[in-house]
Amino acid sequence: GNMYDRREEKEDLSTIVIGSHLDTQPNGGRFDGILGVLSALEVIQTLNDYNVETLRPIEIINFTNEEGARFEPPMIASGGLSGNFEKEYIYNLTDQEGNRFEDELTRIGYKGKMKNRIQNIHSYLELHIEQGPILENEAMDIGIVEGIQGMEWMEVKVKGESSHAGSTPMHLRKDALTVSAKMINIIEDLAIEHGVVATVGRLSLEPNATNSVPGEVIFSLDVRHFEDNKRKNVINKMKQKIVEIASYYKLEVEIQCLWEVPAVEFNSNIINLIEETAKSNDYSIQRLPSGAGHDAKYMQDIAPSGMIFVPSVDGKSHIESELTLDKDIEQGANVLYQVTEYLARFEYSIQ
Amino acid sequence: GNMYDRREEKEDLSTIVIGSHLDTQPNGGRFDGILGVLSALEVIQTLNDYNVETLRPIEIINFTNEEGARFEPPMIASGGLSGNFEKEYIYNLTDQEGNRFEDELTRIGYKGKMKNRIQNIHSYLELHIEQGPILENEAMDIGIVEGIQGMEWMEVKVKGESSHAGSTPMHLRKDALTVSAKMINIIEDLAIEHGVVATVGRLSLEPNATNSVPGEVIFSLDVRHFEDNKRKNVINKMKQKIVEIASYYKLEVEIQCLWEVPAVEFNSNIINLIEETAKSNDYSIQRLPSGAGHDAKYMQDIAPSGMIFVPSVDGKSHIESELTLDKDIEQGANVLYQVTEYLARFEYSIQ
Repeated sequence: GNMYDRREEKEDLSTIVIGSHLDTQPNGGRFDGILGVLSALEVIQTLNDYNVETLRPIEIINFTNEEGARFEPPMIASGGLSGNFEKEYIYNLTDQEGNRFEDELTRIGYKGKMKNRIQNIHSYLELHIEQGPILENEAMDIGIVEGIQGMEWMEVKVKGESSHAGSTPMHLRKDALTVSAKMINIIEDLAIEHGVVATVGRLSLEPNATNSVPGEVIFSLDVRHFEDNKRKNVINKMKQKIVEIASYYKLEVEIQCLWEVPAVEFNSNIINLIEETAKSNDYSIQRLPSGAGHDAKYMQDIAPSGMIFVPSVDGKSHIESELTLDKDIEQGANVLYQVTEYLARFEYSIQ
Repeated sequence: GNMYDRREEKEDLSTIVIGSHLDTQPNGGRFDGILGVLSALEVIQTLNDYNVETLRPIEIINFTNEEGARFEPPMIASGGLSGNFEKEYIYNLTDQEGNRFEDELTRIGYKGKMKNRIQNIHSYLELHIEQGPILENEAMDIGIVEGIQGMEWMEVKVKGESSHAGSTPMHLRKDALTVSAKMINIIEDLAIEHGVVATVGRLSLEPNATNSVPGEVIFSLDVRHFEDNKRKNVINKMKQKIVEIASYYKLEVEIQCLWEVPAVEFNSNIINLIEETAKSNDYSIQRLPSGAGHDAKYMQDIAPSGMIFVPSVDGKSHIESELTLDKDIEQGANVLYQVTEYLARFEYSIQ
């Protein structure tokens, strides 16, 4: 389901890959991912406009389903390209209506062939909005991304017992929602106490009727931190509390891990090159880790990779009002262009 | 949308109406409502089998949408018959997919004519499962229902701000779900403290994605008590706390009343008649109020009404495992038959 485009050169050298993703969250904005794909197009167009000759081919990529909004887990296409997911695993993923990923790719005409997969990658570069408040708060132009925090996605199923909202006394209820509410509060408290980010973003209940005590609740749990051990320790504490709460109220609970990725550090030579390039333009820079997951995380497994961040107004993302100012976009695209052109001009490989 | 059937007699007297409803909650059981309609059919069949002649006509009624599971509020058909709701109000109700009540009645062939509405009602009797644990706990055969508790249905809309689950620090979030969870806990605490029943049975969130901090939550709130003033006082406390919590976390909240009905007392002569009839069969009896709403509540506005309760195993209702034992059903149906036949044999009206 990925889309590629390629600028060929005469030399048969490994390829500089630039890009990001075009899919969004429900009610998401116009910049998350889209900026990286459109600025990659702009890089190619600029090279062509000025007839710039490079040694290496440059390839643009639009990764499919980066967000995981429809098919979980996210980043399945970069995870597939990097060998982290098997093709059959990806093809058999289903959305909430039960549609298979492979069938949906076929339906929209985007089921590609293995032989068309990008190969022989020299390096991967991704320009992205920060999606957080740090660059704006520090009044910095360009974020030099050092790595991406590790994360785990879980699903918690709380089983109580549905009963009549009018005739079931409070003390005889097994209300899956009031008990889930206590779990959600403890998860938040533990996240704040231990300095991780934790989110319950998806929740459904049965029978979901005004007149009925909820008998079952299913909710997602997303926990992230830059230190994998710390993340795992906090998740264990959360699981323990969730089980304790369920047990106290005599409800059943199941906690399932849907997806886990360790923290990653980007290639130090790429990081330094991005930093030097930004400085040479007199842009102010800040090194920072990424709170969000990105396709670059999986790309680092198969090629030296790096990311360029530009500020998000009010730190907002995954919302319609998501905004990055034109001047910041221009500066970010300048850095992407210059690093890409620099890498594409030379034969040496990056360690 | 109501279904009627009528056993005519020679005298042109007002009608004994017996019945209940056939609709259920999502994943509801086989007894709630259905028992009252099928036992009403059994009463008529028994009268016919034994060629019993009565003075008064007897009419069976199956009220539509008693539960309010698809179209809110519940009991709209008895509310319409009793003049509590205007026809146009009912016709314009919509389900969660936006289908109008009138259009759906037309589609399934159940849009009736005004002239077919039941008129000139002598009295209304409804046999129903208790849907609670009292009769079973006290080992009583028949519940003599004194009245129905008053109730209010509300909708609470909590507006925060959706943001990225990975890159938004905990202290910069406006998470509508964690704040709603605190509200749900306070609602439960206040209900227990003040002895009302309160239920958050329906909840939805936006954007409802694992990767996004929830920006908006909408949940229902159902509060009931036998004393209207007490119910209103507790609801005011709940509203105050909900507003305080939203304000503390700098989120917006709207609380809307969807539906309110005061507590009702059934006709004392009907109550006494049911009680004496049960006793004459040597059934053990217990007077009790109904925690659940019933069509009899609105029928009491236009005719002397009463209800007969039979025990619910484990007090369960609105769940597939809802059960009433055959012997209890037989005893309840015997009381319904005897009271109906008694009322239908005489000319006097009930005060």
